[in-house]
Amino acid sequence: MTALPLRPELQGRSPYGAPQVPARYRLNTNENPHPLPDELLADLGAALGAAAVELNRYPDRDAVALRTDLAAYLSRSGTAVTAAQVWAANGSNEILQQLSQAFVGAGRTALGFTPSYSMHPLITAATGGTFVDGHRRADFTIDVEAAVAQVRDVRPDLVFVTSPNNPTGTAVALETVTALHDAVDGVVVVDEAYAEFARPGTPSALTLLEGRPRLVVSRTMSKAFGMAGLRLGYLAADPAVVDALQLVRLPYHLSSLTQAAARTALAHTDALLATVDAVKHERDRIVAALPGLGLTSVPSDANFVLFGGFADAPAVWQALLDRGVLVRDVGLPGWLRVTAGTPEETDAFLTALGEVVAPAHLGGWAP
Amino acid sequence: MTALPLRPELQGRSPYGAPQVPARYRLNTNENPHPLPDELLADLGAALGAAAVELNRYPDRDAVALRTDLAAYLSRSGTAVTAAQVWAANGSNEILQQLSQAFVGAGRTALGFTPSYSMHPLITAATGGTFVDGHRRADFTIDVEAAVAQVRDVRPDLVFVTSPNNPTGTAVALETVTALHDAVDGVVVVDEAYAEFARPGTPSALTLLEGRPRLVVSRTMSKAFGMAGLRLGYLAADPAVVDALQLVRLPYHLSSLTQAAARTALAHTDALLATVDAVKHERDRIVAALPGLGLTSVPSDANFVLFGGFADAPAVWQALLDRGVLVRDVGLPGWLRVTAGTPEETDAFLTALGEVVAPAHLGGWAP
Repeated sequence: MTALPLRPELQGRSPYGAPQVPARYRLNTNENPHPLPDELLADLGAALGAAAVELNRYPDRDAVALRTDLAAYLSRSGTAVTAAQVWAANGSNEILQQLSQAFVGAGRTALGFTPSYSMHPLITAATGGTFVDGHRRADFTIDVEAAVAQVRDVRPDLVFVTSPNNPTGTAVALETVTALHDAVDGVVVVDEAYAEFARPGTPSALTLLEGRPRLVVSRTMSKAFGMAGLRLGYLAADPAVVDALQLVRLPYHLSSLTQAAARTALAHTDALLATVDAVKHERDRIVAALPGLGLTSVPSDANFVLFGGFADAPAVWQALLDRGVLVRDVGLPGWLRVTAGTPEETDAFLTALGEVVAPAHLGGWAP
Repeated sequence: MTALPLRPELQGRSPYGAPQVPARYRLNTNENPHPLPDELLADLGAALGAAAVELNRYPDRDAVALRTDLAAYLSRSGTAVTAAQVWAANGSNEILQQLSQAFVGAGRTALGFTPSYSMHPLITAATGGTFVDGHRRADFTIDVEAAVAQVRDVRPDLVFVTSPNNPTGTAVALETVTALHDAVDGVVVVDEAYAEFARPGTPSALTLLEGRPRLVVSRTMSKAFGMAGLRLGYLAADPAVVDALQLVRLPYHLSSLTQAAARTALAHTDALLATVDAVKHERDRIVAALPGLGLTSVPSDANFVLFGGFADAPAVWQALLDRGVLVRDVGLPGWLRVTAGTPEETDAFLTALGEVVAPAHLGGWAP
């Protein structure tokens, strides 16, 4: 690759991606492990079969029917959202890439508060922009006053706020979002990929859209909807933001199959989201069990838990994998991230973790 | 939108896209109008239904099985291609975008010979690069000596060569490709979206890949394969190019449904490509009929014909649309582009065109 005329900024970089290693329990990418409902699978078969007949034709370039359905779903939260405020793409990654192409790009700056979703800096760089690292407290929360001071200083063209934050798990207070919004002239993107898992009383930034044309809320069907394989991300914002993205979106970016499958899944919203409470229960069970193992965690509004207290987190990662449990080493010294899924997965994770961290009782290896 | 902090380079631009207007005969986007074979539709239903069961899991990030199948298809041409040489994405647009992100980007330059595929300059700009317009002769062919002199002067980081060219239709001689390749240090991308429609004796740039690590051939399943709604583009190149694109590709960019449907379509390659000869026949029938109407065309190796000799091409476009025939005004004064499809479509097009250009006999309107 070094012989190729690669952009200098990319030379020496590594591709993003969780290690894809075989394991009995895959708790590393925050998928929803619950099987999709039989009624949905039947309807998907019918809808995809019908869409296949027209596959020789280009899809609806503007995905109007899908955006209408997504707007109806978001409006269930109590904040009315119209199709003109919604845009959809191949995963929220493509949504974020389009936002970066439209509002950041060469010579401009995005700011995010790391540790956060690691694609934010990668997308910023791949689209020619500069990513500036925001500050967090030692407990991974955002210090509003410090953050406001920093964005006033940096004057970023785009601010990423991940809420609930990945990989730490905690939702961001709306007051933090509004304070950041009011302190910058750029676009503020609230990445709410995990919003449906938030603890009670955690409002979405959707409630802030009215009167804030520079605010964007991004969502995904990969997590709570359990449709990671579908690759469907979307956003809600002022219609002018949607208009702006038309200048950078690739024409016909969303396949006919993607549009048909996403609409079918949205028609089964209640059945799909029925697993959310069960997942949250497992998340809280993990959180509750950790102190008994001498470990700690970060408060989680997501379908995962950042847990730690390790002298050597990579060694613990390997020891869990040796026991068939694949979790994620997100590169934070002392911490690992585990996806909350089924009761069986929680049992397997906690049993393996107990073996790893309590070697005195089990003759195992001490981290 | 003007109130938004849009990148300055994007301000005032318009989104790409053929006008989507209703018409009985849609001959404007070079789709394959032949219905997909029943056996394929049956297999697609089964494959998509099976893929749906696992939609809660992320797709294969590297699309290894699909790339293996694509490599086998390309190898049928006589040039052996391996899966490591192949990369796939959501339409060749995303392939071209990833190439632009990896090899062009801010402060760098792409050169293409316009008129050509109009996404080349748009993708270059959206990814931060500068697009330089190459020169063509009045008959739309590339003058090799002039082109070599120009790229030696401009020193582009990427050169687009569209062959067969869109919207003009003519394939580019391999000697032109090699001359351009040898004259630059950058990457040369031969966009072969329409390769399967080329006239006999027109070799693919696949035959040039051996020993040329800076050469890329891009393809699509939207045209000859009749799968425009699937959004599946791909490339063949040195494995190092594929490695480089890993630095800019969005993780899990290709959905499970896309991968499953594309593999199923490739298993039906012979049945799908059986329509190619019929489409070429209609193309040649259009070309042969034009002189009788006092019109001319550009030699076509594609599934469309650029036809002209009009004083006012937009007026002819409208007059054809008034008769139910939607063709494409690609912005070339005096010219229009029509997709070749079924015999019925050719009949309808030629009848409408006759009415428009021979008003003396029909009492119609003269362009």
